[in-house]
Amino acid sequence: MTDRERTARLPAATLERFVASVLMSLDVPAADAVRVAAYMVQADLLGYETHGVFRLRQYVNRLVAGGTSARARPCVVQETNATALVDGDNGLGHLAMDLACQLAIRKAEAEGIGWVGVRNNNHAGPLALYVRPQVEQAMMGLAAAVGSANHVAPYGGTDLLLGTNPLAIAVPAGDREPFLLDMATTVASAGKIKTLAQRGEAMPEGWMVGRDGLPLTDPTRQQEGFLLPIGGAKGYGLAVAVALLAGALNGAAVGRAVVDFSKDTGTPANTGQFVAAIDVRAFGDPAAFAAAAATLCGELEASPVLPGYDAVRLPGAGRGARRAEHLEGGLDIHPALRRELDTIAAERKIEPLPV
Amino acid sequence: MTDRERTARLPAATLERFVASVLMSLDVPAADAVRVAAYMVQADLLGYETHGVFRLRQYVNRLVAGGTSARARPCVVQETNATALVDGDNGLGHLAMDLACQLAIRKAEAEGIGWVGVRNNNHAGPLALYVRPQVEQAMMGLAAAVGSANHVAPYGGTDLLLGTNPLAIAVPAGDREPFLLDMATTVASAGKIKTLAQRGEAMPEGWMVGRDGLPLTDPTRQQEGFLLPIGGAKGYGLAVAVALLAGALNGAAVGRAVVDFSKDTGTPANTGQFVAAIDVRAFGDPAAFAAAAATLCGELEASPVLPGYDAVRLPGAGRGARRAEHLEGGLDIHPALRRELDTIAAERKIEPLPV
Repeated sequence: MTDRERTARLPAATLERFVASVLMSLDVPAADAVRVAAYMVQADLLGYETHGVFRLRQYVNRLVAGGTSARARPCVVQETNATALVDGDNGLGHLAMDLACQLAIRKAEAEGIGWVGVRNNNHAGPLALYVRPQVEQAMMGLAAAVGSANHVAPYGGTDLLLGTNPLAIAVPAGDREPFLLDMATTVASAGKIKTLAQRGEAMPEGWMVGRDGLPLTDPTRQQEGFLLPIGGAKGYGLAVAVALLAGALNGAAVGRAVVDFSKDTGTPANTGQFVAAIDVRAFGDPAAFAAAAATLCGELEASPVLPGYDAVRLPGAGRGARRAEHLEGGLDIHPALRRELDTIAAERKIEPLPV
Repeated sequence: MTDRERTARLPAATLERFVASVLMSLDVPAADAVRVAAYMVQADLLGYETHGVFRLRQYVNRLVAGGTSARARPCVVQETNATALVDGDNGLGHLAMDLACQLAIRKAEAEGIGWVGVRNNNHAGPLALYVRPQVEQAMMGLAAAVGSANHVAPYGGTDLLLGTNPLAIAVPAGDREPFLLDMATTVASAGKIKTLAQRGEAMPEGWMVGRDGLPLTDPTRQQEGFLLPIGGAKGYGLAVAVALLAGALNGAAVGRAVVDFSKDTGTPANTGQFVAAIDVRAFGDPAAFAAAAATLCGELEASPVLPGYDAVRLPGAGRGARRAEHLEGGLDIHPALRRELDTIAAERKIEPLPV
């Protein structure tokens, strides 16, 4: 086994520079490349490995094929004091979402709430990235996205018309770690399945079924079935609601108009998202809110556990600690991802990651 | 079997007058009694039987014991152009939610979005009632509520610290029936279980488990276990998010501070909710939006069905037709509910419902 076949541990800054170089080699302006690379590595730092650097291959393929524009300029096309519609200009998704998030926070400062829709965008990594900045401003963050491929059928049906359509909510909790829920409306996310496929591991039953309604556990056969929504008709309802709120509302693609962004790398995806910020100050005393949120979180964590569980956890628990560990000790790069990144470096004729 | 032991069919107007008389006998001002009665019967008309007139017994008990105030005056305590906080003054929940819904619509007309939090309120029937008016204004409606009793434990735990914490989303879809999702974050709602208990029927497995983690199917033993969230940790995360957004944000009760509004009828519940309106005009051409939403809904309904299913349905499908049928043909009153309403009439010394 050579060094490059082992799981490598690399500093975040090294990985950021590598990703930025790849993007710049594809004509992405330096400032944009650095910003997107920072978001992508931030996802890994926080432990969202399926939505971080792992996605570089998909982004590269789309930039090469012209499905995503390297020199996009996201801009605001319509706004009120509390809302805006951002057009992503078909760029790397992180750029428009960065703009949307900053705008939502500014509007919430003025009017108590800011809600920014995004259209003509692309995959932007985990939504968690775009609800955490709100918490730093003592605001709540909300976000949702139309999934970048249709892996989900309507409840009781077999047509692939919906994505995993994730949603995220972050809430400040005083001195405690913030509450941060970032979930697909399906039992499993497409990202998790892609990771298993890359690693040659099987899916548990309950994640997917085939068109015959029977369980599907081979992640490489993902195209032969569909992901199951949480709670049956309820998760299906949530997925449609996200399609309407993050997609149709903003003039973005939903239903049959959704492009599978991995399989069809040459067609603009017109991905839709929204980002919102709610300023707790608009609803009362922020210190009282922080205390109430912290008390609830503490009560939940202190609950006696059910047989078979070791602890009650809050959504997002431990993300901050993981980030600190990764910043200190470096990020683990699985050999399969390492091979992919080496291939990309060779294709782009840039320096590969150091051993 | 006497006539009063059969399922009765009564005109909605008859039921409304009866409910209003009951409330007036409990010192609720006539205008408020009529408004609450209209909302309660509207729930039955739309087919939300577990959240309509069925709840009168709970409301009566709280008004009698003083846990809910008969002469409450909900009012706005804080606002921006796009947000408001309404204090329900501990009145019947429908009154503050009515105010919140109207206010959210007005603010959305001005700023594209209106988000109104509610505190110091009570149970207000199904959230569907407070997201439908938005659709009539070509807006989207969002709402959520802290459940009026803690029937849910955190994922992996056994302490009853969460309610069913429902959320609702309504979206106009052009000429089609609107999309209307109104769901508990649990597999089953407390209302459905109450109805089964009243009718002496069993719960399916998967709705509840006991503190030992074993399935619970006797609805009268509800207090010995807890409701299961949809999707395990994800539904739990949604329930906590609703507690924070609809409860803590507004200074309403969450966690251990939640009063079981049926068992403890004398203590103010400080129930929290929010209602929001999003004006589709703030994000583009409303006709284009209506067309996109209608297309998506049509695609979903046209999907081939899975073995074992007869059709693909959209959340809220058929509610409008059911309302029209009920308005035309009357509302069915189950004998168990009828007995309860007769008892209430006797207690309040008012005319019972006609045979």
